[in-house]
Amino acid sequence: MEIGNRLEAMRRACPLVHNITNYVAMQRMADILLAAGAAPAMIHAREEAAEFARIASALTVNIGTLSPEWAAAMAEAAQAARGAGRPWVLDPVAAGATAYRREVSARLVALKPDAVKGNASEILALAGAGSAGRGVEAGDEVAAAEEAARALARVTGGVVAVTGPVDFVTDGARAFRIANGDPVMTRATAIGCALTGVVAAFLSGGGDRLEAAAAALAFYGVAGERAAAGAAGPGDFAQRFPDALFALDGAALDRLAKVEPA
Amino acid sequence: MEIGNRLEAMRRACPLVHNITNYVAMQRMADILLAAGAAPAMIHAREEAAEFARIASALTVNIGTLSPEWAAAMAEAAQAARGAGRPWVLDPVAAGATAYRREVSARLVALKPDAVKGNASEILALAGAGSAGRGVEAGDEVAAAEEAARALARVTGGVVAVTGPVDFVTDGARAFRIANGDPVMTRATAIGCALTGVVAAFLSGGGDRLEAAAAALAFYGVAGERAAAGAAGPGDFAQRFPDALFALDGAALDRLAKVEPA
Amino acid sequence: MEIGNRLEAMRRACPLVHNITNYVAMQRMADILLAAGAAPAMIHAREEAAEFARIASALTVNIGTLSPEWAAAMAEAAQAARGAGRPWVLDPVAAGATAYRREVSARLVALKPDAVKGNASEILALAGAGSAGRGVEAGDEVAAAEEAARALARVTGGVVAVTGPVDFVTDGARAFRIANGDPVMTRATAIGCALTGVVAAFLSGGGDRLEAAAAALAFYGVAGERAAAGAAGPGDFAQRFPDALFALDGAALDRLAKVEPA
Repeated sequence: MEIGNRLEAMRRACPLVHNITNYVAMQRMADILLAAGAAPAMIHAREEAAEFARIASALTVNIGTLSPEWAAAMAEAAQAARGAGRPWVLDPVAAGATAYRREVSARLVALKPDAVKGNASEILALAGAGSAGRGVEAGDEVAAAEEAARALARVTGGVVAVTGPVDFVTDGARAFRIANGDPVMTRATAIGCALTGVVAAFLSGGGDRLEAAAAALAFYGVAGERAAAGAAGPGDFAQRFPDALFALDGAALDRLAKVEPA
Repeated sequence: MEIGNRLEAMRRACPLVHNITNYVAMQRMADILLAAGAAPAMIHAREEAAEFARIASALTVNIGTLSPEWAAAMAEAAQAARGAGRPWVLDPVAAGATAYRREVSARLVALKPDAVKGNASEILALAGAGSAGRGVEAGDEVAAAEEAARALARVTGGVVAVTGPVDFVTDGARAFRIANGDPVMTRATAIGCALTGVVAAFLSGGGDRLEAAAAALAFYGVAGERAAAGAAGPGDFAQRFPDALFALDGAALDRLAKVEPA
Repeated sequence: MEIGNRLEAMRRACPLVHNITNYVAMQRMADILLAAGAAPAMIHAREEAAEFARIASALTVNIGTLSPEWAAAMAEAAQAARGAGRPWVLDPVAAGATAYRREVSARLVALKPDAVKGNASEILALAGAGSAGRGVEAGDEVAAAEEAARALARVTGGVVAVTGPVDFVTDGARAFRIANGDPVMTRATAIGCALTGVVAAFLSGGGDRLEAAAAALAFYGVAGERAAAGAAGPGDFAQRFPDALFALDGAALDRLAKVEPA
């Protein structure tokens, strides 16, 4: 499986990643996408979201700070991306927390995202399997969500990634585990949200979506390990992390990635 | 009065703090709440804000970037929090700056926040005592707002904190002064806004609200002093501050807190 | 031409800069304005935007994350600022990317901004000269946009700044080139957006708008060079940049500014 080459190819292409994401994550997500080598744009109005999704290389949809107007734009942009052959990635933040969130996520899942990225609680909620999640943190273990992830991937026809101490990603048939990353990544906000943009950037290169998603997770985790080494705390980590993404090259990534078939 | 123990208890509980706050503050507030030991969530849509306020441990409402739809959600969430016995904290940013802001703040004050946290100008504006504030900075001195704070606390039945070089907090009868903090805290955006979340996190532990609020102010101020020591400027401070909150334990807080009855 | 003196005068005045800007840029823009010596406020609702624009020292309008409600408030605030004799600055982010963006930018240009600040693609799009811009990055060279900038300045009666490796700013007749800055400034999000606020802060001091804008660009570029020196990457740069603005004084600015008539 190619990991470092996918990173280098993504950087050469510098994909324009269109994000309809939550207010909390926007700045850090843009910083991280820029540092990783992609070009971020945040555009949400119904007057232009679908048009822009057809121009962009990939789309991400994150339901963190949801509202009806934005939910409509998310659906229109996802349909436009699909129609234009562009991958789109769903980040179902706190999908199980309220009735409204469950309803909107179900509508978005029906639009068949090329990838879904969530923590175990979110993936369980999407798969209708209940969840211990009260908000944005994971209350469930990755292992408990593996079957739900496989089932969800068969429904969407895309890949589903469950993030945690060891990430799991599947296309419903095959699967990988990615054992990179550091616990401090959960102590700075929007690190998980921004990963969704990096997954979209890797998917925009085409080819096998499962391998592309696994490569994105490994890239993110290895950079996280490097940024965490020597960081004084979550604030220091958050500042070092874009620099670690920026500095990591394909050869080092291949050497440090811990990706195994599951 | 217990300060360090309240911090340790807050961390053990890891309260879910629901914030309807301004766009400028969202990321830094989430970072700060995570670093302090709480779990932040930003949810504002009327379709789910009240439902989520009943799930969360505490609610904060900040009127920095106001709009009619958000103002309605703020009121509904505040009522829901109150109905569910959860504390809610109001941050009346620039309350006196425009007619619209004066009207919305008056409506929110009528919903009896468990705590109000503002600078002197904002507290004077809320108490109807006029203000020199043209925007988000304080144009008035803390001492000039102490009577207004006491009066406001008697109206809401909660506590009122006036922040400044020396903070003042009162429940209308008793009061404390907290002499921690550093001037650089006013040179990085959202540091004041994020304090509102930390106050809410401390209030969610129950017990005496005045002492809980004073403990939160001391925790924040001591961490601010530590982060400011050696910081190269406001940018460096902003990155060090979450790490200082993260690293500060109850024993050190007890040693460094400067809390006196007023 | 006075550069350092304009910086010192701006700091003494501490202008209140009202920003209707995109969600991605808000926090960093506020941090940067505070560090530069101004007082930022972000207020967007139609219920108060025009009223606040009359109170503030200057207004900025940035169309990065546009919506119809915000576009209406932008126009109302711009008219109010103009009516009150306050300068307002337009940042036409990705102006050529969608039909909606072209339409809203044309409406705003018709309200005669005192300054427009964009990259070459954005200025070409505003001037109706087409553009290679697919999003927020510049696809065109500064030199290719100089004539468009002069033409646009004659339409608005204000100044137009084109940012790039060497910035160009014109009032339609005279022009300057500013050769300060560092490439890393394009790798951290919102650095360009926040410049718009600094230009507004400098314009609020009155006097020659072309020289004020050139001074702001030089201040920003020199601070960028200092922050970039020794920065480990774009994350580190983003944290150092406010501190470099904060630390730069008029005398050092005069020594390091590279401003030449064009």
